[in-house]
Amino acid sequence: MRIGIVAPSCRIDDAIHDRVTALAARDHAGVELVWHPQCWLSHGHFAGPDAARAAALIEVANDPAIDAVWFARGGYGAVRIVDRVMDALGPAARDKSYLGYSDGGTLLGALYAAGIGRVAHGPMPADIRRDGGETAVGRALDWLGGGTAGVEPTDDGHPRAAFNICILAHLAGTRHLPDLAGHVLMIEEVGEYLYRTDRDLAQIAASLPGLAGIRLGRLSDVPENDPDFGMDGPTLVRDWCARSGIPFLGLADIGHDAANRIVPFGPFTATPQFAALAPTG
Amino acid sequence: MRIGIVAPSCRIDDAIHDRVTALAARDHAGVELVWHPQCWLSHGHFAGPDAARAAALIEVANDPAIDAVWFARGGYGAVRIVDRVMDALGPAARDKSYLGYSDGGTLLGALYAAGIGRVAHGPMPADIRRDGGETAVGRALDWLGGGTAGVEPTDDGHPRAAFNICILAHLAGTRHLPDLAGHVLMIEEVGEYLYRTDRDLAQIAASLPGLAGIRLGRLSDVPENDPDFGMDGPTLVRDWCARSGIPFLGLADIGHDAANRIVPFGPFTATPQFAALAPTG
Repeated sequence: MRIGIVAPSCRIDDAIHDRVTALAARDHAGVELVWHPQCWLSHGHFAGPDAARAAALIEVANDPAIDAVWFARGGYGAVRIVDRVMDALGPAARDKSYLGYSDGGTLLGALYAAGIGRVAHGPMPADIRRDGGETAVGRALDWLGGGTAGVEPTDDGHPRAAFNICILAHLAGTRHLPDLAGHVLMIEEVGEYLYRTDRDLAQIAASLPGLAGIRLGRLSDVPENDPDFGMDGPTLVRDWCARSGIPFLGLADIGHDAANRIVPFGPFTATPQFAALAPTG
Repeated sequence: MRIGIVAPSCRIDDAIHDRVTALAARDHAGVELVWHPQCWLSHGHFAGPDAARAAALIEVANDPAIDAVWFARGGYGAVRIVDRVMDALGPAARDKSYLGYSDGGTLLGALYAAGIGRVAHGPMPADIRRDGGETAVGRALDWLGGGTAGVEPTDDGHPRAAFNICILAHLAGTRHLPDLAGHVLMIEEVGEYLYRTDRDLAQIAASLPGLAGIRLGRLSDVPENDPDFGMDGPTLVRDWCARSGIPFLGLADIGHDAANRIVPFGPFTATPQFAALAPTG
């Protein structure tokens, strides 16, 4: 199982590479990590100029010898390359898994909207820096290797998708917003004032008709509002669900933390994501 | 000229009322200010609960004895009431001017999308607190009284509209985003990291086909990015214009400051906004 690692947003450092490489070698014998040199580029806020970040992702996605694409880290930058990436994906990009979250959700959403690949929201190499980061990255490596132990376990009988709230809101009105009618949408956020999350939720509720329901992951590191906002995060989510006729289904085990479980987009299944590894019938 | 003042977002204090009332009495004899008591309500972050803020705006907009609606202040809150307000506006709401900016842009956009009233982006009562605030509020009072001296002066030969960047981005994908095909769009921002503004610009460029051009107002109080973002604000705007085939037309004299000029939505005209005051031919 060859996993290509690229950084569509911000750059990584050697410690991330070294620790994740060691973890994979120790516990995940079937997984070979292929770190694209673009991960180390630096260009202002970004892991290299737009052209370099796009080219690396396109190269890895279109490589038939790569089984999965793993986004190294979030931050910001995917919006700046998503158009050119999506316009350049070839046949080999379809037969591949894509794993990441946070800013990477822009690309996951675009891939899912285009029906390309097997898309999943879950831990990235940079999560190794968190308390308990080895657990998070190990969960991702297991999934990339064909396992399902790290998959978010709630099954409401509908296909699922998961996003960072701010990232999903910014897909509204663009060609990269997937049609999530009939889906359970799982959402999480980090470091945002509640008034910002509220504004994003309004846009999400207005832009995604026909949701089967919403599940709420963690809203972490919420800055204090002055004055007190008057509602907590779960109340906001329930409120927008009620206003929009979207069933609120409870919690989801996702967030910007080491516990962040994996949400493969589409039907819930306990079978591995690589169909070739799990012949049915 | 009776001007109804409501607060769709955050509350005002007595000083704002007192100073604006005194300014109007001193310099704008033809203008009568009607301050709705809702402006002083307090409910967490907001100038009263959603129901109270919506009811006050609906009451004033639907009152045939009121000539114009002036939003008292921005902040956050318009998104929470825009649906119920727009669904409740009657015939008297159409024959009226609406003035505000920042968070109020949510309502200006929705009104313009629905073809209701004469909508303008410009100073609000709370601007009296700025350095030079009397100039800003005097400019608004003059316009509300029928003058045009405070109108943003650039005429590119197209209808115009103006928005805060974050607020406009959040209209994407909702029924309240106006069709701005053929318009010159003027945009401004305050207090946002450049990566956030960049993300908003991407969404705006993708969501508004057929713009005649973009003019850039002030991007003020931009927090420092770590590391340096690598591009400045004007470069970002030019970049998204170039990518999207939108002509970049230069600067606009708008922003979160006392110099903020008035941009009536629609065709540029040097005549007063009240047709009855400016018989032509």
